[in-house]
Amino acid sequence: MRLSKTFVKTLREAPKDETARNGQLLVRAGFINKEMAGVYDYLPLGLRVIENIKNIVREEMNNIGCEELLLTALQNPEPWEKTGRFSDKEVDVWFKTELASGGMLGLAPTHEEPITTLMKTYISSYKDLPVYVYQFQTKFRNELRAKSGILRGREFLMKDLYSFHTTEKDLDDFYKKVERAYMNVFERLGLGEDTIETFASGGMFSKYSHEFQTLLPVGEDTVYYNADKTIAVNKEVMNDETLKDLNLKREELTEGPAAEVGNIFKLKLKYSEPLGLKYIDKNNEQKTVCMGCYGIGISRLMGVVAEKFADDKGLVWPESIAPFKYYLVGIGEKGMEQAEEYYKAHQDEVLFDDRDIRPGEKFADAELMGIPYRVVISDKTLATGSAEITNRQTGETKLIKVLD
Amino acid sequence: MRLSKTFVKTLREAPKDETARNGQLLVRAGFINKEMAGVYDYLPLGLRVIENIKNIVREEMNNIGCEELLLTALQNPEPWEKTGRFSDKEVDVWFKTELASGGMLGLAPTHEEPITTLMKTYISSYKDLPVYVYQFQTKFRNELRAKSGILRGREFLMKDLYSFHTTEKDLDDFYKKVERAYMNVFERLGLGEDTIETFASGGMFSKYSHEFQTLLPVGEDTVYYNADKTIAVNKEVMNDETLKDLNLKREELTEGPAAEVGNIFKLKLKYSEPLGLKYIDKNNEQKTVCMGCYGIGISRLMGVVAEKFADDKGLVWPESIAPFKYYLVGIGEKGMEQAEEYYKAHQDEVLFDDRDIRPGEKFADAELMGIPYRVVISDKTLATGSAEITNRQTGETKLIKVLD
Repeated sequence: MRLSKTFVKTLREAPKDETARNGQLLVRAGFINKEMAGVYDYLPLGLRVIENIKNIVREEMNNIGCEELLLTALQNPEPWEKTGRFSDKEVDVWFKTELASGGMLGLAPTHEEPITTLMKTYISSYKDLPVYVYQFQTKFRNELRAKSGILRGREFLMKDLYSFHTTEKDLDDFYKKVERAYMNVFERLGLGEDTIETFASGGMFSKYSHEFQTLLPVGEDTVYYNADKTIAVNKEVMNDETLKDLNLKREELTEGPAAEVGNIFKLKLKYSEPLGLKYIDKNNEQKTVCMGCYGIGISRLMGVVAEKFADDKGLVWPESIAPFKYYLVGIGEKGMEQAEEYYKAHQDEVLFDDRDIRPGEKFADAELMGIPYRVVISDKTLATGSAEITNRQTGETKLIKVLD
Repeated sequence: MRLSKTFVKTLREAPKDETARNGQLLVRAGFINKEMAGVYDYLPLGLRVIENIKNIVREEMNNIGCEELLLTALQNPEPWEKTGRFSDKEVDVWFKTELASGGMLGLAPTHEEPITTLMKTYISSYKDLPVYVYQFQTKFRNELRAKSGILRGREFLMKDLYSFHTTEKDLDDFYKKVERAYMNVFERLGLGEDTIETFASGGMFSKYSHEFQTLLPVGEDTVYYNADKTIAVNKEVMNDETLKDLNLKREELTEGPAAEVGNIFKLKLKYSEPLGLKYIDKNNEQKTVCMGCYGIGISRLMGVVAEKFADDKGLVWPESIAPFKYYLVGIGEKGMEQAEEYYKAHQDEVLFDDRDIRPGEKFADAELMGIPYRVVISDKTLATGSAEITNRQTGETKLIKVLD
């Protein structure tokens, strides 16, 4: 991409009401635009990051045999009434609206009810099971407050996976596969070291659910984690019983703020029972399908990565999800010419700053945007047939050959 | 994809309230699921078609220098009030909802207001122009009736492009590029021959806008088109003045039903003026930005293609957007073995019917799903080292070598 050809530019200031660091930096770097609290547009560079995160998650989901589909935002109340969740008392983040032809609708804050209902068409026998389906869908949640940039959205992108099984044993086995796939995702995003599988409230049907919590100063949750960060407990279930269940000692755990980047949940019969999702087993008996659900916050992950790695100069993207790998600057006549050549040969990976502005401004933008490697080709570097390449994260600089 | 591993199967019946042929076929073939009138889920095969259409449109948009971004569904009323379009009298398809923290919101039926507002941050000088930005976004329209399957959705996918210019001349030039890009899209989808650029009402600021209308028996519009299908007039502006303007004679035009698959519009100052999108020109004078907007109905196109090419056996996808190119069936022990080999070598292109059902059922599903080529490997075809390949559209069959 040529910066001379995009409308995006870095901004001196973020909106005054944007208090979160991820929001401020992402707006200033031209990755997102704030429509209102918790509601953000994704500009070309930001959309590339989102797509890169989606592709990593998609690969990991497909690797464990999941199928991608796409459900709707508009929700018929009927199945939600059967589970009691259309009530604003039960789910307090509904956006509701009305059909012109009559009747209430909701905007899906999550999708258990429609996916369970959908599966009634496709699952009738044990031979139809298991089923693993996921989507990348915009979720709508009418949060009273949304002050954390893209860490907490009223309209945000989520990957949600639902699994359907004959038995709890089968659910347990798949659940373990998802745990590993999720850790793969976080590792590929550079968050592996500080993302801890965390015991959290399991609701009515399981004692615990598992969250994936990334340690982060601005995280909205509080977790207690062990020394090698292999296990954590969410504050909401931090008590003697949990410690005993998990064979942990309070004094060995460290308290810290964290952001929930994933959540996995053994639903068992919670939704399949009230919605009547049944199958006929090998003995010709009717049984209720056993379910699991598994979420990853895609746009939140972008915010977490932004918060986690940013420094005083701006964003720092890991290569795996950076919008471009290289930020290219040519200096001097020959430097510019050679930069053109380099750009033409590596277009997909290069953000080419071909604007008619001072190199210093370009360097500042390269840093604010957080592109992993800055490549400078100047008359000086060309004297040795080289370009200067600078690592955004470490600041390390070296010369690489660009001419034979 | 292995059919033994997907939850999707063909259905004997579509929902009783599904009266549109595209809806019936797409539901029966397992491509979509009906949530309610005008609101459909995309199942794995359907989502692949949608993504294929998006990729064709994306390529054509990028080819003319457009940049992709993603705006939000939730809409702050403020800019819409400035243009008068938050009123239900002015725009009669709003879904509206309320923020928990107070205040009305709308669900975007289109995006002129937010994109114009966004550009106020990025456009201030003639040097910042032109700008061409597009998105693939879910639109919400509270239609009183929605009985045309995915041809008319209450929640549907659209590609919308907006262009920003210094002058009308510049808008006109870009508009021509979009006209060509749109025809490229329709040609690549196999709709080129029957898709006609059509003069339609231009609203307040232009005499005409252009629609792209695909001749289709179930189309909701009526157009009058010339013998070589190079020009058409929408019934809404079919009068003596239009005929005179376009130098057409009524008796040379054929009346026919059509579906609108695209619409391009010279907005000029319609939104930039009330929203205050200005720039400073070369003479340091403040001017108002000149705009165009250009839409393609992505999910509607899927419905149009389904309607257009389906026959009495089911769907018929053009190769360019088919979910898979080949539908693979192995018959007999050696046939199955060889089919496995073939599948492993061509996974991305092959829908492998490895289910334990009769070949006749597989052939019927292959036809209903509309996969372009059915490949049968049997002990009989293997006797000559071949597979039998059948063209879904023409029914032509030939043998191709699969073994050396």
